[in-house]
Amino acid sequence: MTIGTYSWEEYVRLVTSFHGSVEPGLMIGGLIVDLALKSLPEGERFDAICETLVCLPDAVQLLTPCTIGNGRLTIMDFGKFAATLYEKTSGEGTRVFLDTDSLGDRPEINAWYFKLAPAGERDQDLLLRRIRDAGHSILGTQRVRVNPAGLRREKAGASAVCPECGESYPARHGTRCRGCAGGSPFLK
Amino acid sequence: MTIGTYSWEEYVRLVTSFHGSVEPGLMIGGLIVDLALKSLPEGERFDAICETLVCLPDAVQLLTPCTIGNGRLTIMDFGKFAATLYEKTSGEGTRVFLDTDSLGDRPEINAWYFKLAPAGERDQDLLLRRIRDAGHSILGTQRVRVNPAGLRREKAGASAVCPECGESYPARHGTRCRGCAGGSPFLK
Repeated sequence: MTIGTYSWEEYVRLVTSFHGSVEPGLMIGGLIVDLALKSLPEGERFDAICETLVCLPDAVQLLTPCTIGNGRLTIMDFGKFAATLYEKTSGEGTRVFLDTDSLGDRPEINAWYFKLAPAGERDQDLLLRRIRDAGHSILGTQRVRVNPAGLRREKAGASAVCPECGESYPARHGTRCRGCAGGSPFLK
Repeated sequence: MTIGTYSWEEYVRLVTSFHGSVEPGLMIGGLIVDLALKSLPEGERFDAICETLVCLPDAVQLLTPCTIGNGRLTIMDFGKFAATLYEKTSGEGTRVFLDTDSLGDRPEINAWYFKLAPAGERDQDLLLRRIRDAGHSILGTQRVRVNPAGLRREKAGASAVCPECGESYPARHGTRCRGCAGGSPFLK
């Protein structure tokens, strides 16, 4: 079992260093991204979509050139364990998802995904072994098409100085920066 | 000049491998995170906020244990080059920002930040040298306090099966999954 260009063990080390711990979601995420990568025509330039905030975005960032900071990874908070790699211009791509219908005979993975037992009670080593054994068999794939222009990050454009905090911000956000307009996480 | 535990050159290699290229924003981002890390009391357990989607989140993910996928990095789309590291329980922290008032005698950095010339016309090597020379001198810091509970990711909770696509999704999202409720990026 390999994950992208890594052996399973190498990927475990990479995940531990980046994410802080080896979570089942990162390992299934690795399988998802691995299968999506294998579905790409060779040399294709692609961007990524991830349908959950949890774990999976880190697998995409570690295994593809798509990151949050370079704008090539779009995260949608749908709570679904699914990722899509799509060609940058045509928008044609492959969506790979955790196929929960396949978990009937995978009790440990099923119990983890559907939170059937408290996290503290689960045998994490056994669960990770089961994920490795399952490999791509617990995943489904679909051909999809997106509108790449609709997913591209808006350009920041011209700057303005916020009359309240005095900091520079994108003028297109309005007459004040979004922090001063009520979005600030900082307590007074 | 060091960035976190890396030499400047090591950080350049790390950024190139993760983000795909060495962007000025990643280098200033590295300086911002480095200064925020140095402001932390030793051994403090912290989470991160980033006030832009562009470049800076990758510096946070590379230099701290806070990533998108592990829920310890909150990104706010304010278009501001600022990051905050805050203690997980008290919410006390330090916000470090690019101090645009300091750029008056840093013409190359000023021209990059305010997009005074097309990217194709700039001398990228000179700009990166200027950023290295400037170091922390172009940054400002503030003590801040946040409400950590308000920034924590909501638990996924119980799952439901979407009556339209048949996939599992967080029941708290409503009677359909967010994709089928109109959020889907996929064309029919």
